[in-house]
Amino acid sequence: MKTMTLTMPLDMHVHLRDGEMLETVAPLTSYSFSGALVMPNLVPPVTTLDMVRGYKKRIQAAMESDDFEPYMTLFYQNYSRSFLEEVKDHIIAIKLYPSGVTTNSEGGVASFDIEAMRETLEAMSDLGIILSVHGETNGFVMDREAEFMSVYEMLAVHFPKLKIIMEHITTREAVKMLDQYENLYATITVHHLMITLDDVAGGMLRPHLFCKPIAKRPHDREALLKVALSAHPKVMFGSDSAPHPKHTKESCGCGAGVFTAPIALQLLCEIFEANDSLDNLQAFVSDNAQQIYGICPDFKEVVLVKHDFVIPEMYGSVVPMRAGETLTWSIERVD
Amino acid sequence: MKTMTLTMPLDMHVHLRDGEMLETVAPLTSYSFSGALVMPNLVPPVTTLDMVRGYKKRIQAAMESDDFEPYMTLFYQNYSRSFLEEVKDHIIAIKLYPSGVTTNSEGGVASFDIEAMRETLEAMSDLGIILSVHGETNGFVMDREAEFMSVYEMLAVHFPKLKIIMEHITTREAVKMLDQYENLYATITVHHLMITLDDVAGGMLRPHLFCKPIAKRPHDREALLKVALSAHPKVMFGSDSAPHPKHTKESCGCGAGVFTAPIALQLLCEIFEANDSLDNLQAFVSDNAQQIYGICPDFKEVVLVKHDFVIPEMYGSVVPMRAGETLTWSIERVD
Repeated sequence: MKTMTLTMPLDMHVHLRDGEMLETVAPLTSYSFSGALVMPNLVPPVTTLDMVRGYKKRIQAAMESDDFEPYMTLFYQNYSRSFLEEVKDHIIAIKLYPSGVTTNSEGGVASFDIEAMRETLEAMSDLGIILSVHGETNGFVMDREAEFMSVYEMLAVHFPKLKIIMEHITTREAVKMLDQYENLYATITVHHLMITLDDVAGGMLRPHLFCKPIAKRPHDREALLKVALSAHPKVMFGSDSAPHPKHTKESCGCGAGVFTAPIALQLLCEIFEANDSLDNLQAFVSDNAQQIYGICPDFKEVVLVKHDFVIPEMYGSVVPMRAGETLTWSIERVD
Repeated sequence: MKTMTLTMPLDMHVHLRDGEMLETVAPLTSYSFSGALVMPNLVPPVTTLDMVRGYKKRIQAAMESDDFEPYMTLFYQNYSRSFLEEVKDHIIAIKLYPSGVTTNSEGGVASFDIEAMRETLEAMSDLGIILSVHGETNGFVMDREAEFMSVYEMLAVHFPKLKIIMEHITTREAVKMLDQYENLYATITVHHLMITLDDVAGGMLRPHLFCKPIAKRPHDREALLKVALSAHPKVMFGSDSAPHPKHTKESCGCGAGVFTAPIALQLLCEIFEANDSLDNLQAFVSDNAQQIYGICPDFKEVVLVKHDFVIPEMYGSVVPMRAGETLTWSIERVD
């Protein structure tokens, strides 16, 4: 039977939440990944060393395996150099949210005043802390990411030694940026490789496919597929897996987020196989991220096999993407 | 207190459904409107004279007032001239659905073969039966209406004496068509005067604002407002009020439709007043439709007053648009 072995797969953008939800989702990520970049948008957001340490401990307590590294992040604010020096061995990135653009981003950046941000971004640049960015404006939903490109340009030009990750990119405009600025990189989710707005709102309305940034047009998905399938050295996998309880997704005001953590590797095998690109999957789900972030996860091997896997209807209170559907790849074992 | 009197208001596009749902919604429309064009997309669709008669009787039985005229329609198929002659005194329009574009449209037109449609459309043209069209392709959700303009053009050119209604238009492309072909007209809903895709999916996902055609961009809404507020003689009000039970709207696959029947006139007063256009509302909600359709409803007067009205959370099993919110206009009496 056809198999696919992935070594040290990494999810470079994941929401593990806290409390009961953390207990549900952390083991699902720690099972099949060697490490993951953990988003800091808790309530309140992670902004101090104590909060980083505390959150990391809670994650480690919730994991079911000890061969998993939660790469920690801070929620972007203007931090002093001395604080960043103190915290730098405990985080690998700082996540910047424009204010109000997604779940728990209210405390984010309201305006991109380069001078006000200079001390923080220069210190990050000097200390090798990566800037991870949710790149959306508050404009019309289909334009938000493309409109944000000017902010990426400004950041890339003003801080040429700062590594900047365009998180969960969804447009051809963002793909184009990868080759225009040496210090711009990107994560791509598995769902944005699969869906467009048509899947969310073209037939029935599908709350479990509703996410931010919203899925865009077919030509955008094609552009994402092209760089993912070829494992462009500046892109890496980040699931943006974001659990919400079923009752809040299926309600009159549903929050944004697609839950893919336990099925991401299986889905990626399907997509890469269907496009004759399985050979590039290792780079997309691990090697590129190791290179970009300069991280060396402990050895772990995930063996996938071409064997049907029926996605559960629920994981705890959370409905995963494609619940109840059958995937053609499953995880056989993790060594 | 400020009042607004509307005489013979008409809703030229409404879904009254059947059975229990008909019992819920028919009285809400018959209370505040003199008449309404009733959509034929039941299951199975209304395609025979017996079905028209039967459905009209059920509507009349469900109404709570007898001063309301249900203007009946057939579901478009290629009908013979003799059938159309037989049915013409019982309907005023035939509604054409491209196959699969919206609720219960599966039996619609799969391809626009003018020659195959010629007998039907020429007979309709000769007999003064109006062609009412759901104008969407099966393309990308944001492009479906604009892509359909070439079909409208083809129909308008081939059947110059046929009155064609572009139903529930949502784009500036459709607005532009009004002045390009003498025989093209349009209905506009109240929700498309109020919302864009941002309201549906820009913040939280709002299933009760999910409709087909989906709400578009700000510039599209502006174009609709412009012709509605000025009561362009070729546009008329059609609510496209489309009830779905709450549990099906708030689920993992929610159907398209916004329910506005009982609040449409109040909302229109708000919108027209806010844009200093109250003087044009009578034409938009009645006079234009009388002219276009050549109909003369019985006398009815709806008096609205500038007085707060809290929209109920539910009407039967249906959640209306803006449930629980307060409108500044209410219906004082109907004479």
